Amino acid sequence: MNKHELFDFIRRQRSFLCVGLDTDVKKLPACLQEEYIAKGQTAEGIFAFNRAIVDATAPYCVAYKPNLAFYECFGLAGWTALEETVRYIRANHPEHFLIADAKRGDIGNTSAMYARALLESLPFDAITVAPYMGEDSVQPFLQYEGKWVVLLALTSNKGSHDFQMEEGRDGQRLFERVLSKSQAWGSDEQLMYVVGATQGRLFEDVRRLAPRHFLLVPGVGAQGGSLEEVCQYGLTDECGLLVNSSRAIIYASGESDFAQVAGEKAREVQTAMERILQTRGLI
Amino acid sequence: MNKHELFDFIRRQRSFLCVGLDTDVKKLPACLQEEYIAKGQTAEGIFAFNRAIVDATAPYCVAYKPNLAFYECFGLAGWTALEETVRYIRANHPEHFLIADAKRGDIGNTSAMYARALLESLPFDAITVAPYMGEDSVQPFLQYEGKWVVLLALTSNKGSHDFQMEEGRDGQRLFERVLSKSQAWGSDEQLMYVVGATQGRLFEDVRRLAPRHFLLVPGVGAQGGSLEEVCQYGLTDECGLLVNSSRAIIYASGESDFAQVAGEKAREVQTAMERILQTRGLI
Repeated sequence: MNKHELFDFIRRQRSFLCVGLDTDVKKLPACLQEEYIAKGQTAEGIFAFNRAIVDATAPYCVAYKPNLAFYECFGLAGWTALEETVRYIRANHPEHFLIADAKRGDIGNTSAMYARALLESLPFDAITVAPYMGEDSVQPFLQYEGKWVVLLALTSNKGSHDFQMEEGRDGQRLFERVLSKSQAWGSDEQLMYVVGATQGRLFEDVRRLAPRHFLLVPGVGAQGGSLEEVCQYGLTDECGLLVNSSRAIIYASGESDFAQVAGEKAREVQTAMERILQTRGLI
Repeated sequence: MNKHELFDFIRRQRSFLCVGLDTDVKKLPACLQEEYIAKGQTAEGIFAFNRAIVDATAPYCVAYKPNLAFYECFGLAGWTALEETVRYIRANHPEHFLIADAKRGDIGNTSAMYARALLESLPFDAITVAPYMGEDSVQPFLQYEGKWVVLLALTSNKGSHDFQMEEGRDGQRLFERVLSKSQAWGSDEQLMYVVGATQGRLFEDVRRLAPRHFLLVPGVGAQGGSLEEVCQYGLTDECGLLVNSSRAIIYASGESDFAQVAGEKAREVQTAMERILQTRGLI
């Protein structure tokens, strides 16, 4: 999916919501715990949850983002559930943008293996990548036409202040160096950046360096970031934002109505996004 | 395994070699290609290779380090092979130190999931972690008694110059900031650092900030780093080094004698290491 198609899908959905499929077995509703987990059917339980969440939220979002940690921690069962989830979304909601939240990054030949795993064997559209190891650790992910690298720039957590905010001799902070340097590696048709919703007015500094890139924005909802503030400083004339919400949507109810309530929560966010898109004349 | 036990094992093995199990199906010897891969038995093929390599090299090394990318890229089959390999080493070579080369790192609740996956579900002794997201992304990996975090500091690849070498306002480079800041997060009984063998005299700068930490050193062999140079600047009075070699050992022969030749290559490295340990009075 290229940038134009993504923006077009955002306009049709009247939403730039990404639903984070951070499916924690311990937080599955009691009905699924009983039906699957108690019988040792971990993969089936995770997939049943994801399928219900996806079907309920698909009308209100444009993207799904499973965080791989939540699948890896169940080994084979987790990997099976991830594969089934990705294939289910591809088959049943083929327009939705699929992001592997993996935060990978290694020396060249190894990054190439991760790229094969997540952009080829599993048909994700995009993968999140950590920039610490520099250009040759990112390049292998940029070799797939129509696929995207989402590079960590300024994350949503407290630890983002430990290194990302550190100023260099020229006054440029590390996240700014990542933004400026990486633009020589790929275009805004291949590269997005992770910028946490909790970073508030720093979005202005991000947009100064990356005025046209899509930003993947975690941290709205459970982590406390504000949709309005993110949009005030982050929105572009092609939208340029994918705002992620995980826990606040997928765990909104722990009862048997979990999917319905997740759908309602997603619709609430979509409604707020629609208002913003209208106000800015984008739809 | 604590630091004292690790040094003790190094003295008994007369080696500080770590063998990297970066098992690429395409590079398996023809005999295994025929016996397993051609019949679609990917997991069995990878495991058969690993088992033979491990049995042949175990007398000459102290650690094994599978890079997870090489397993992830085969999905379920890869994950099965990884699990079997880890369990095989634990059962048959119980003293060897086991490192998950994963380079993970995410917000706190997500890092906790990765930690569970790799330090609990799979019984690794250590995991490599990327520092970009700061303290709260690393802490969850430090909660396991007797387990280790191996934090990326100065990597072996060309891209290490993109950000890691960048000087801050106080003249401290990013890798130095990672070394100094992270020492407040855990002791040298819990933390090691990745420092690439290709970094030569920069080992002096690393040792100035981390005089007692173990360093995991990739980049000897195929990547061109020198064992002698690494030891000249990196060795401590508790050894303090785990030097990794992957391709130069595990793919030394592509014929049916692959395991035997891997064993010989490992013994060559071990012999060089024994000489160095003797010269320095450590054995």
